[in-house]
Amino acid sequence: MVDAASPSPALDHPILDMTATAIEITRQLCDIESVSGNETTIADAIVAALSDSAHLQVTRDGDAIVARTNLGRDKRVVIAGHIDTVPLNNNLPSRFEMIDGVEYLWGRGTVDMKAGVAVQLKLASELIEPTFDITWIWYDHEEVSENLNGLGRLSRQHPELLVGDFAILGEPTNSIIEGGCNGNARVEVRTSGVRAHSARSWVGHNAIHDLTPILQTLAAYQPRTVNVDGLEYREGLNAVGISGGIAGNVIPDTAMVHINYRFAPSRSGVEAITHLRELFEGYDLTVVDLAEGARPGLNAPLALDLIRAVGGEPQPKYGWTDVARFSALGIPAVNYGPGDPLKAHADDERVATDQITACEHGLRAWLTTN
Amino acid sequence: MVDAASPSPALDHPILDMTATAIEITRQLCDIESVSGNETTIADAIVAALSDSAHLQVTRDGDAIVARTNLGRDKRVVIAGHIDTVPLNNNLPSRFEMIDGVEYLWGRGTVDMKAGVAVQLKLASELIEPTFDITWIWYDHEEVSENLNGLGRLSRQHPELLVGDFAILGEPTNSIIEGGCNGNARVEVRTSGVRAHSARSWVGHNAIHDLTPILQTLAAYQPRTVNVDGLEYREGLNAVGISGGIAGNVIPDTAMVHINYRFAPSRSGVEAITHLRELFEGYDLTVVDLAEGARPGLNAPLALDLIRAVGGEPQPKYGWTDVARFSALGIPAVNYGPGDPLKAHADDERVATDQITACEHGLRAWLTTN
Repeated sequence: MVDAASPSPALDHPILDMTATAIEITRQLCDIESVSGNETTIADAIVAALSDSAHLQVTRDGDAIVARTNLGRDKRVVIAGHIDTVPLNNNLPSRFEMIDGVEYLWGRGTVDMKAGVAVQLKLASELIEPTFDITWIWYDHEEVSENLNGLGRLSRQHPELLVGDFAILGEPTNSIIEGGCNGNARVEVRTSGVRAHSARSWVGHNAIHDLTPILQTLAAYQPRTVNVDGLEYREGLNAVGISGGIAGNVIPDTAMVHINYRFAPSRSGVEAITHLRELFEGYDLTVVDLAEGARPGLNAPLALDLIRAVGGEPQPKYGWTDVARFSALGIPAVNYGPGDPLKAHADDERVATDQITACEHGLRAWLTTN
Repeated sequence: MVDAASPSPALDHPILDMTATAIEITRQLCDIESVSGNETTIADAIVAALSDSAHLQVTRDGDAIVARTNLGRDKRVVIAGHIDTVPLNNNLPSRFEMIDGVEYLWGRGTVDMKAGVAVQLKLASELIEPTFDITWIWYDHEEVSENLNGLGRLSRQHPELLVGDFAILGEPTNSIIEGGCNGNARVEVRTSGVRAHSARSWVGHNAIHDLTPILQTLAAYQPRTVNVDGLEYREGLNAVGISGGIAGNVIPDTAMVHINYRFAPSRSGVEAITHLRELFEGYDLTVVDLAEGARPGLNAPLALDLIRAVGGEPQPKYGWTDVARFSALGIPAVNYGPGDPLKAHADDERVATDQITACEHGLRAWLTTN
């Protein structure tokens, strides 16, 4: 971690124009290729773009950047976004296009999530005296293995930088507030039998046949819908893999169902695994992945102000996102950013430019009220 | 196909001593390595060993050899064995060893099935005036892909050579008659759904969950035991494979159970598939393998004579063997040969030498009665 308030003298990065619109800044950010692991150039450009912002204390940790106001406000909000993208597929440089009368910016990263980062950068640069103190965070390695995640690294090594009363993650939500996120568990449930030649199957014991009660439980399961802080979280319990079999003439002695459980944020990870162990009692169960959910915290005063400022009806977030890292630190957090999440990672990734403007207006209204 | 009554003048093969015991001839045959596809040397040696047998008309087709008596007897029996083995695993040359007071010949091919071939060769050479006309067949490529099988090739290209009233296949049966064989079918039963992100599983349709009724049918299935010509054939219906799944966060849109059905020889292959289609009605079912069974024909007069001559209680054969090829030609057939079938293909493949002698005595008695 280095203090990076002063830009490096050698200018070996593209220049971001902070006086341009958020739409234009989005285009500039997209055209700096920054597939996970290759974020240094875009991080350099962001640090340089903030070098004239005397109201911000800028700290850099690897390719993560933290920019804080220190105005002595009662409340501090954290607003974060990742600067990496998934790999390209001939979808850079970005370009503007019109479809059915709607203007889009097309290209890798437009949705996930450089439009969100552009709005944040624009506001970070311009809001010299916001209503709350703000901690802006732009981080690396979100699209790859969890242990590389830049926000995770900051939360482990510098948790003091993430402290705040409320957090917003700028992931694409069509510029509608999506609160918290479901938790996510994956387990493998195994059966075992006795191998035998299938011509004399009665000598063996078929482990695949023993999967039957497991599949019956899954097929009959009625997932809950749980109201958490005013949002309805739909759960899901699904086989996402099944395997077994040695050869066409062998009774298999082992078989496995790979199960994914998405659970409402009112349930802890431990409670989720306990539920699975009860459902599949008596079976060999191995936990292969477990991520806590995040409560939306939409009943907090700051959240209610945000909802009023940006408009629209808040929705629950079903997929797991980095808001759970804030939740783990005791900070209520929501997702709010431009772009259709169904276009994230798509080859025809594109963001409606009016969503970029809407998101900027929403955040600006909230951060400058009172 | 060439007439091979005269041996080739160049002697480039090991010499088999037809005056030795069947045990010693087994050893000599085993020490001629003849993994499937490499049977020419052993076939040459067999043709040469029969060259002095004026009572036999010897025909060669590739590495398959047919040696027939033509004595004008009322009945003709076919006695066959394959001359290839599965690959070696440091188990040649063969050797004699004693275990718990029992003498064994150890090595690749001792059980499957050069002991049977040795007994057949010894008797072919010595029985100048057997009770029945005999067609001796030694064939190649039994241990590999069905379409290479030497007996199958003969039955397609020269069915007249296989004509007879009864057939014996010398596969290892512990020198006890095993009648006919079960049929063998394999099918793949598939389900299809709608792919979706597992965070929003209700948008998709889980094909793995749809396997549940298929597994229920398999787990609840009560296989029949069917008396065919006096032998009790146990059937079996088993999943031998199961698969499905795309990734840990995806609702799978396709899944499959691979099912193996072993059916009594009173049921035809078509009837077997009809039964499976009824069991799994409404599912996408693909037949991947189908082999007819073979009735034992133990109520035929020739069979009753054989049972009396060799002694012991005839048993049903559960695994599929080449007897089904005779059955397909309308010829009742049994398995009868020295060696424990559980030792076939094993790294410690070994035959109890007294079983070789017992098999020779049994066949000799049958072929020389009256």
